Amino acid sequence: MFEAKIDASVLRECVETITAVVDEGKLRIAEDGFKLRAVDPANVAMISFELQRDAFDEFQYSTESEEDKESEIGMDFGKLLGILGIGGKEDVELKLDEHAQKIYTRMGSLAYTLSLLDPSSLRKEPKVPELEFPAHVIIETEEFRRAIRAAEKIGDNIVLGVAGDEFYMETEGEMDKLRVGLSKEQLIHLTPETVSSLYSLEYIAAMSKGMSHAENITLNMGKNYPLQIDFEVAEGKAKVSYLLAPRIESE
Amino acid sequence: MFEAKIDASVLRECVETITAVVDEGKLRIAEDGFKLRAVDPANVAMISFELQRDAFDEFQYSTESEEDKESEIGMDFGKLLGILGIGGKEDVELKLDEHAQKIYTRMGSLAYTLSLLDPSSLRKEPKVPELEFPAHVIIETEEFRRAIRAAEKIGDNIVLGVAGDEFYMETEGEMDKLRVGLSKEQLIHLTPETVSSLYSLEYIAAMSKGMSHAENITLNMGKNYPLQIDFEVAEGKAKVSYLLAPRIESE
Amino acid sequence: MFEAKIDASVLRECVETITAVVDEGKLRIAEDGFKLRAVDPANVAMISFELQRDAFDEFQYSTESEEDKESEIGMDFGKLLGILGIGGKEDVELKLDEHAQKIYTRMGSLAYTLSLLDPSSLRKEPKVPELEFPAHVIIETEEFRRAIRAAEKIGDNIVLGVAGDEFYMETEGEMDKLRVGLSKEQLIHLTPETVSSLYSLEYIAAMSKGMSHAENITLNMGKNYPLQIDFEVAEGKAKVSYLLAPRIESE
Repeated sequence: MFEAKIDASVLRECVETITAVVDEGKLRIAEDGFKLRAVDPANVAMISFELQRDAFDEFQYSTESEEDKESEIGMDFGKLLGILGIGGKEDVELKLDEHAQKIYTRMGSLAYTLSLLDPSSLRKEPKVPELEFPAHVIIETEEFRRAIRAAEKIGDNIVLGVAGDEFYMETEGEMDKLRVGLSKEQLIHLTPETVSSLYSLEYIAAMSKGMSHAENITLNMGKNYPLQIDFEVAEGKAKVSYLLAPRIESE
Repeated sequence: MFEAKIDASVLRECVETITAVVDEGKLRIAEDGFKLRAVDPANVAMISFELQRDAFDEFQYSTESEEDKESEIGMDFGKLLGILGIGGKEDVELKLDEHAQKIYTRMGSLAYTLSLLDPSSLRKEPKVPELEFPAHVIIETEEFRRAIRAAEKIGDNIVLGVAGDEFYMETEGEMDKLRVGLSKEQLIHLTPETVSSLYSLEYIAAMSKGMSHAENITLNMGKNYPLQIDFEVAEGKAKVSYLLAPRIESE
Repeated sequence: MFEAKIDASVLRECVETITAVVDEGKLRIAEDGFKLRAVDPANVAMISFELQRDAFDEFQYSTESEEDKESEIGMDFGKLLGILGIGGKEDVELKLDEHAQKIYTRMGSLAYTLSLLDPSSLRKEPKVPELEFPAHVIIETEEFRRAIRAAEKIGDNIVLGVAGDEFYMETEGEMDKLRVGLSKEQLIHLTPETVSSLYSLEYIAAMSKGMSHAENITLNMGKNYPLQIDFEVAEGKAKVSYLLAPRIESE
């Protein structure tokens, strides 16, 4: 049994962090809140998402069997987001009907019933790879997003790197080159290191939309290594990690 | 002879109610104002429109022959709307030249001459069918429009109905279902009844744009019956009725 | 050697006047500022542009050889404009590397390197034809732009003319006709004359975007003659002239 009530804008912030990477996925509901881990169709990007129970105004969950400690449901987050965009600023009531495989959503006079997706039709929940990141940068989200918007005008890939006390992002086009360099003083935090990797701008641009409600983000980097971006939304009650595979630099 | 002067935004509100259903039609000009009745090309939707003489700042009309009590002109409302959108907030002066089959429009320094359409090339003015509606609902326009915008994200058709003391709108998609239910208390008026019909969302969505300047609308409904939507714009001086044929519910 | 610093919005205003006519061109840098003269690919429109040295906050220029008094560089103004749109309101630092054929642009933490175009690959700088204009009109830019926006809804060409004490713009569509007539009193200046010419609306509409930061424009006209539009941006420190060939009126 699952029934809950949550501020519509809080839920929207959360769903937007998910749809930046995947349209659908397996949401795990348990006594302590929501959890999700999903990879994009091309296996390039991954999201780990957790929403604490206390982000909800009301939250009731109980399993039907003693064995299960959580319910796993197949959600179409794209559809949910579409409806949340209409509902305005009202509270959202959620109610799960596991037998009928439906989730009932109510915002004021608007009742929206979404059929759940068959979890067996969805990609398997990915394992989180064991990664060690030598370099960490904490940056204001808007500063990062502005650089990504500029880079999108130039090329298809972007280098993210740390060179000593500087964090930099570099994109090359046919005729031109963009470099954003930020010293330790211009960042919230930086571990001095020498690392850099190349990533797809298309993926980073999608992720940068998903993080728009976070004030700061943490970039975890290595040498030709995946990029992990950590941030919080929903007043710190939702924790999100994006993981992005590097591209091979042609040299 | 017809010459008139009217506030540009008032005329724009009126023309927008018409272009929501038809791009062109036969406008009847008489001593008491404008009248129009037209069906859309697919014969699914109809508009009846009346604009009172006192919506104009100046209004002069006289027939040339004793027999005629009105002039019928073929108007391209889409073109007129395009120009009104540019003209700003100035007054619009209108002058009809029946011999040259032109209408002269002046907004400040901008003079726009529109050739009239040959009325014989236009669809015949429809007869207003005799209808009796068992159920009537008066609702705030914005509440109705918000529901329609949400429904457009889900499906192609919408059920409008009254069930006892509740007015509801229901749309089904492949995987999901949206229901907006409003009790008598949430409406301005409701006749308790049990009726419902299915309509094309595409048509209702177009109509809902046409009614955006009205504060309230009246929905007149029956069982698998046409929908008539009545409202006023131009500070109550323009009366508009949309009529929409029902769709056959596949069961 | 060229190094300079300029307000980003001032530079953007200037580049927008250029991209209204051409995407790329030969920019001449000298001790007294920037100069450019370029024709569009179809040889229908021409821009002459001058930006005074004192529009810059800092400006350093020196030639390498005694013979040259200026440097001519091939610029992709479209690309430059794209990056200026991102950079915000900060100052822009410019630095030319003639040997590497690159221009370095810095806005805060964002460094943008643009490869110069090979001047020999660009169209030759046009000669400014000797023209004498019998009629001159000075008009508020917004008044002119509004008329052009209205005309674009009607047709493909526009007549600009002076008839005695009136300046007029006229466009004909298939069914309709738009005329904007402005008396001497409604203009800032008018030379009474009898002239008119037909021009392509597509070109004038592009030019009207380029002049959006100017308060007034001067229209120089003749009988079936080119149109020259003069205006200033960058607080009077940039002088721009557009020249547009007339179309032949089909009669």
